Amino acid sequence: MEIKELYEKNYINKEVEVNGWIRNNRKQAHFGFIDLYDGTCFKTIQIVYDDKLSNFNDIRKLLVGSSIQVEGLIVESSGKQAFELKANKITLLGKSDETYPIQPKRHTKEFLREVAYLRPRTALFQAIFRIRSVASMAIHTYFQENNYVYFHAPIITANDCEGAGEMFRVTTLDRNNTKAKDSDDFFGKVTGLTVSGQLEAETFATAFSKCYTFGPTFRAENSNTKIHASEFWMIEPEVAFCDLDGIMDIEEECLKFIVKYVLDKCPDEIEFLNKFVEKGLKEKLEKLVNSNFVRITHKEVIDILKKADIKWDFLPEYGEDIAKEHEKYITEYFNCPVFIKDWPKDIKAFYMKQNEDGETVRAVDLEVPGVGELIGGSQREEDYEKLVQRMKELNMNQEELNWYINLRKYGSVVHSGFGIGFERLLIYLTGVDNIRDVIPYPRTPNNCEF
Amino acid sequence: MEIKELYEKNYINKEVEVNGWIRNNRKQAHFGFIDLYDGTCFKTIQIVYDDKLSNFNDIRKLLVGSSIQVEGLIVESSGKQAFELKANKITLLGKSDETYPIQPKRHTKEFLREVAYLRPRTALFQAIFRIRSVASMAIHTYFQENNYVYFHAPIITANDCEGAGEMFRVTTLDRNNTKAKDSDDFFGKVTGLTVSGQLEAETFATAFSKCYTFGPTFRAENSNTKIHASEFWMIEPEVAFCDLDGIMDIEEECLKFIVKYVLDKCPDEIEFLNKFVEKGLKEKLEKLVNSNFVRITHKEVIDILKKADIKWDFLPEYGEDIAKEHEKYITEYFNCPVFIKDWPKDIKAFYMKQNEDGETVRAVDLEVPGVGELIGGSQREEDYEKLVQRMKELNMNQEELNWYINLRKYGSVVHSGFGIGFERLLIYLTGVDNIRDVIPYPRTPNNCEF
Repeated sequence: MEIKELYEKNYINKEVEVNGWIRNNRKQAHFGFIDLYDGTCFKTIQIVYDDKLSNFNDIRKLLVGSSIQVEGLIVESSGKQAFELKANKITLLGKSDETYPIQPKRHTKEFLREVAYLRPRTALFQAIFRIRSVASMAIHTYFQENNYVYFHAPIITANDCEGAGEMFRVTTLDRNNTKAKDSDDFFGKVTGLTVSGQLEAETFATAFSKCYTFGPTFRAENSNTKIHASEFWMIEPEVAFCDLDGIMDIEEECLKFIVKYVLDKCPDEIEFLNKFVEKGLKEKLEKLVNSNFVRITHKEVIDILKKADIKWDFLPEYGEDIAKEHEKYITEYFNCPVFIKDWPKDIKAFYMKQNEDGETVRAVDLEVPGVGELIGGSQREEDYEKLVQRMKELNMNQEELNWYINLRKYGSVVHSGFGIGFERLLIYLTGVDNIRDVIPYPRTPNNCEF
Repeated sequence: MEIKELYEKNYINKEVEVNGWIRNNRKQAHFGFIDLYDGTCFKTIQIVYDDKLSNFNDIRKLLVGSSIQVEGLIVESSGKQAFELKANKITLLGKSDETYPIQPKRHTKEFLREVAYLRPRTALFQAIFRIRSVASMAIHTYFQENNYVYFHAPIITANDCEGAGEMFRVTTLDRNNTKAKDSDDFFGKVTGLTVSGQLEAETFATAFSKCYTFGPTFRAENSNTKIHASEFWMIEPEVAFCDLDGIMDIEEECLKFIVKYVLDKCPDEIEFLNKFVEKGLKEKLEKLVNSNFVRITHKEVIDILKKADIKWDFLPEYGEDIAKEHEKYITEYFNCPVFIKDWPKDIKAFYMKQNEDGETVRAVDLEVPGVGELIGGSQREEDYEKLVQRMKELNMNQEELNWYINLRKYGSVVHSGFGIGFERLLIYLTGVDNIRDVIPYPRTPNNCEF
């Protein structure tokens, strides 16, 4: 029986059998207590054993990390927990020894990264990775219930591979074979790992009206920060017949859905993180679900920043990007999530819909209190001539993206989309501050273990 | 309004507005019919327009692929369909032209692969890619409802990278820099694209009891067949406290769940495929849901094959692999899906649990009528000594997999898992016979377009 079941129905005075791993074994002369977990729920079950067990002395000596099977009676407890398991029989399945790195004490997150293959056994990472799983399901549920088609964007791609400094190259060429040409490579050309599935997603949006990606993306950026990883998961929805206001509605509804879903499904995990990782986490998340997001333009943001009585490290300026300190000020100013839209075109991507002013594009970033930018989206340029003109201005290779441009030639429609960095979202949901702690096996410069 | 909605409620005599793309435009002198789709459901809606529309002559000339907005009245139809949309107003959103490759006629699948970015607009690929999406959701639903943790296995990995011929290498080294050492690479070592997330999944199964992966995997195999792709998606569940019989139960339940889910959610798509792609598809799928899977050993299979009055291309032999023709015979012999278990250890992977006979391992392949092997699984070797011994026999690098071996040192438990090739499953579900047609943008040797 799974430990989860013990907490879902009343088993008082019933015989049960559970399997699990020892998180703690506190022994006295004639009895002892084991905290047993099996990972099916956040809670452990307290096992009480005494010297009536024939193998009492062996059980006493069992070390943390050992796996056991316990048969016994669920009884009311005099301790903190509502009930405990009075053991009639305890069988050792697999012993652990004194070299086991996970002990019932506080380990630093840095140490736990070194034993990343064991850290899911700790309470902290049971909470984090359960939430990662549940949040994934929230995403699929939201989009599938709303009739989006889940689109698996290609991982290996030949787009943007010429001279893209931040792309990993994918190859089967022997490095010592200096005579090999690019055309000798596996795909007959230079290929790399995708940085985004958006362009391909647009081909599905203009066939199914609504689609979303949810898959890994890559960035070969040499950044060693708390929020950069070389491999991370992205969600990229794309919607036809939808303008910038429409896509903001969807972003807001989607984010609230995910947060509420996690609050509903992971109360124990959130409670734990709220207590030990980020005080006020639960309140923060509940507040987001119940707030109305503000929508203002980039220009209005600069107006507000300029009026603020603050000595900025970076002076806010029309036509320029905004800094971390500005994001923070704006979300605190409104005390709720803020959509900043209509950004200067020169700091945004080529595919974004150009506004009539000739200076801005219909881009929108969602800034959330406590985390900063969480979602980036835009209406896409659906006008063939304008898109081609913009690509020329930026000296882009049209040939390579002919298929993408052609979407504007064959039944072009107003359409919009956005991207959520899944790990950024998890940092927000868990209160953990380092991206290395929300990915099972993080990949960062000079680090590719397990 | 989405076209899907028109088929979910009764809109007869109601005014509606829809957006979509023209699949066909049949015009007479004073009226015309447009088949309009928006991809929100498999069905199109028939638009009836006549010369009372001020732009009648423009509408008549609209080419296939154009996007339009239609306002009008839903009325009962005298044609095949139950109702149609009598247009009061038709607005052109984006025109198409005579170069549009998708015309209302039969295109070969080979041609459609060349315009893969437009093929989701055809009825065939609307069916296939909707089923791909719905089957994905079936998988997540099955595992999440059964409390599995969704585990994102790493894509870039350093495991198995030395000399593994079928792995893509991932690098940021400049090919012209012949002096660069492996340690100069982005991760400080040789890395490649994962071929399986199983080993890492075992670390999660021994923390959460139950987990599953669902993500892309890669094989740099130079095979140009109908069933090989260089990039494909795999589902790899892993379950602690579960033996070979237990994992067969799960495989059977899981597969039936997925097939039933798709039958329930995609009746129109299955009907279409049943009619135009594989006669008997629907019956095949319904039969699987209602069948009991047979379980026999590899040795028993060879017994049956040897007794068969057939001239084999490959002679069946104890201790050896079985061929396609054998798989076919066995599934026809039993006329239902067959689990073949207890395989010769020399043709199976190092991590599989060794049977007491010293010759076989607790591996199981699921053979399904009409498609062959659909799922491969095994109980894993949980005995530290036996695992290490087997790795030595196979001259494997223990150092590199120390973390994996250590799972047998710290609370080892009986555990099992399996892998489903998602595209193989889709070939089965859709009746389509080429893997290139169930992946949005397939990657195969010398082919990496879009």
